Amino acid sequence: MIFNEITPIRHILSPDFADYKIVTVAGWVRSVRKGKQFSFVAMNDGTTQENFQIVVDQKVSNYEEVSSLLLGSSVQFKGQLVKSQGKGQAVEMQAMEAKVICRTTEEYPLQKKSTSYEYLREVAHLRPRTQTFGAVFRLRSILSFATHEFFTKRGFYYLNSPIITAVDAEGAGEMFNVTTLDLNKLPTTEGRIDYSKDYFGKKTNLTVSGQLAGECFAMGLGKVYTFGPTFRSENSNTARHLAEFWMIEPEVSFADLDDMADLGSAYVKYLITAALTHGQKEMEFLDKLAKEQGENLLSNLELVRDREFVRITYTDAVEIIKKSGAKFEYPCDWGLELQTEHEKYLTDVHFKGPVIVTDYPKHCKAFYMKQNPDGKTVRAMDILVPGVGEIIGGSQREDDFQKLMTRVDELKMNKEALWWYFDLRRFGSVPHAGFGLGLERAVMYITGMKNIRDVIPFPRTPKSADF
Amino acid sequence: MIFNEITPIRHILSPDFADYKIVTVAGWVRSVRKGKQFSFVAMNDGTTQENFQIVVDQKVSNYEEVSSLLLGSSVQFKGQLVKSQGKGQAVEMQAMEAKVICRTTEEYPLQKKSTSYEYLREVAHLRPRTQTFGAVFRLRSILSFATHEFFTKRGFYYLNSPIITAVDAEGAGEMFNVTTLDLNKLPTTEGRIDYSKDYFGKKTNLTVSGQLAGECFAMGLGKVYTFGPTFRSENSNTARHLAEFWMIEPEVSFADLDDMADLGSAYVKYLITAALTHGQKEMEFLDKLAKEQGENLLSNLELVRDREFVRITYTDAVEIIKKSGAKFEYPCDWGLELQTEHEKYLTDVHFKGPVIVTDYPKHCKAFYMKQNPDGKTVRAMDILVPGVGEIIGGSQREDDFQKLMTRVDELKMNKEALWWYFDLRRFGSVPHAGFGLGLERAVMYITGMKNIRDVIPFPRTPKSADF
Repeated sequence: MIFNEITPIRHILSPDFADYKIVTVAGWVRSVRKGKQFSFVAMNDGTTQENFQIVVDQKVSNYEEVSSLLLGSSVQFKGQLVKSQGKGQAVEMQAMEAKVICRTTEEYPLQKKSTSYEYLREVAHLRPRTQTFGAVFRLRSILSFATHEFFTKRGFYYLNSPIITAVDAEGAGEMFNVTTLDLNKLPTTEGRIDYSKDYFGKKTNLTVSGQLAGECFAMGLGKVYTFGPTFRSENSNTARHLAEFWMIEPEVSFADLDDMADLGSAYVKYLITAALTHGQKEMEFLDKLAKEQGENLLSNLELVRDREFVRITYTDAVEIIKKSGAKFEYPCDWGLELQTEHEKYLTDVHFKGPVIVTDYPKHCKAFYMKQNPDGKTVRAMDILVPGVGEIIGGSQREDDFQKLMTRVDELKMNKEALWWYFDLRRFGSVPHAGFGLGLERAVMYITGMKNIRDVIPFPRTPKSADF
Repeated sequence: MIFNEITPIRHILSPDFADYKIVTVAGWVRSVRKGKQFSFVAMNDGTTQENFQIVVDQKVSNYEEVSSLLLGSSVQFKGQLVKSQGKGQAVEMQAMEAKVICRTTEEYPLQKKSTSYEYLREVAHLRPRTQTFGAVFRLRSILSFATHEFFTKRGFYYLNSPIITAVDAEGAGEMFNVTTLDLNKLPTTEGRIDYSKDYFGKKTNLTVSGQLAGECFAMGLGKVYTFGPTFRSENSNTARHLAEFWMIEPEVSFADLDDMADLGSAYVKYLITAALTHGQKEMEFLDKLAKEQGENLLSNLELVRDREFVRITYTDAVEIIKKSGAKFEYPCDWGLELQTEHEKYLTDVHFKGPVIVTDYPKHCKAFYMKQNPDGKTVRAMDILVPGVGEIIGGSQREDDFQKLMTRVDELKMNKEALWWYFDLRRFGSVPHAGFGLGLERAVMYITGMKNIRDVIPFPRTPKSADF
């Protein structure tokens, strides 16, 4: 039994802790400073952003061993907690016993004090041991829990939508094939691959969205959300694309697009509040990093937390952008997609705050979105935040069976594969709506990290699936 | 704006609710009973197990339309809440306005009162609308949230381990291949498939476990857990196997097997308590179903919640089983795997309660488990519950670099692919341990459902990936 004997550093350093007793701590060395009579060990156990200082007296039997430890060595100390002499932390430990568990050598890949993010991606198995990635991944966890808490408090039920599927929800096409066929001996019928011999008896792929499954469940449980991995096999090597990423997709029966604008903005505010509350030390650390780049992470987030989200239609947004006189790389005109530069103009320059753009042209959007009476637009929305652009995309769904079928015919879609989805409009159809938030985009936004590969444990990108 | 105007039935029927005001409810018809002066509509909105009774007076303008509604039609009622005349519920509604949103016809697939689970799997998109599956999927959600709550309260950080991977964690071999290669035009080099042309530049598959990623993160963040989908491509058509299922895998630094036995039994108790507390009505409904089969769902769960988990070694367990004189289908002897029938003998007959079996023969278990000084056994454990057998499997991990490498050599494993995993023992290695719980097995156990296909939204099994 080890677990119960060790006090997490997070407890010791929490503001409520003032119990100056003898405890045992265990973790990894961040630095050792050898003095004349004492050595000072800064250690971290992963439970908190902060390092904890241990004062090791010469009288401790293995003083020399401890004093020569290198970064990353694992150690355990038993000692007396005392008021800290120096500034910064309130508490430190006077070691009575020290146990070296595993010494590192100069070979330890995290040796250097400042290691580039590019290099750390090559040792992604070790990077959670660094201050920056410790902060990022604790915050990712805090935001994940806040997500479950936000939706559960509001009466939503969580749903695991399928990962392997025969359906292409978005008609996107860029999908990973899943198979157990022996590629060296592929079965064929009349010159074509015979997928009836494959594990599922048909061609299957990795899901691009849990929405359609969410819609099925919203018709039974009322309010549901998914939170699971989704996949795109686009050959994009950018700082904003991953082949494997995690999405949160709520779906609500008896709700319209205004409800989703409310829910989405409340959710974004809830995430920011959770980060600032439960990840205070992490956010302070990341704010310092951002300031070195001339950015204000905390105050930008506080603005979005405290401001009402402006709502405008796509048509009005296009007018604002066209009238702005600002220079853009891409054209902006009614009927064209808004580019990130246009979105940032709205949030950063024109409104100076978060914006919800609604009612996009029908032809820009997916088949399932609710058609407006104008015949040209659909009840879609994007939630835009300063500095980033889109963080949430959603829509009210077309609940009218005839209108949905007409749209599906216009787009010449394969109706057979979606018979079950159409059933939702044939039997007990109700107005409903939902949205999607990409977890990694949200973590980038809140931590200020600039590359999406640095906010997911083991990123999956073209030519890269190590670890 | 619809969402805010509608009162969830869960609120109205909660014990605290006693506000007899005018509200609007919306949902789906469960039954309509037409009387002389009044019709009685039982409706459900998915927020709770219970149906809600609406009394519709002849004076309501569309009384005839409402009175002829069939099961599954979607409706909205505005009316006065009043004390219920009948027994059962405390509150009912006297309708002032009724709005029929979408009528169902006799074609509605859930028409018949009693529909078999087999049939409902064919309409898995509609089955969350039934009482049984509503209960099961609300409980699945309750257990998922309880999982996040349990680990978060104990200072664990949540981690998304990768889904697409080039690593086979268990050496199990039964994996799904993930590819973007065009199977009709496979690139080859010297007669073999050239995976360097594939999306990730190498052969990749769907993960069988998040453990190894969890171990990397435990060395940085201390205590972590994964909760994500895992995959096996075994060709098993049983009531206990899925190709795609969800696993929860905690991993704890500075912990041994005893700690995992503590943590695992506390977790099982927490799940049961959450189901009984937050899913009380659902559990009462499922207990009734179980009683029809001669089983006591609630009292069996309460026993496990309240009892201490007995701990014995595998060696002692084998002795008990051999001495029992009971008849088994499979042999039981030291060195053989315990079969479910043996596990059930321990829990149901011998100990009459939950049992933790530890220290299994080395050759039955995975390469990464901590070797005991006896040279024959490893620090593995299985947590067994009455009626089911294994619900959790875990181990302390081998943290000694040399011992791990010797074992890897004995097993003639490919060391190259796991260089990063071995790094964890080279640099700052610490004693650590973890376990895995299959969410679907836990949901079966707690809901009393007998087929694993009935506890996951859209089951994936051989020849079946519909929806």
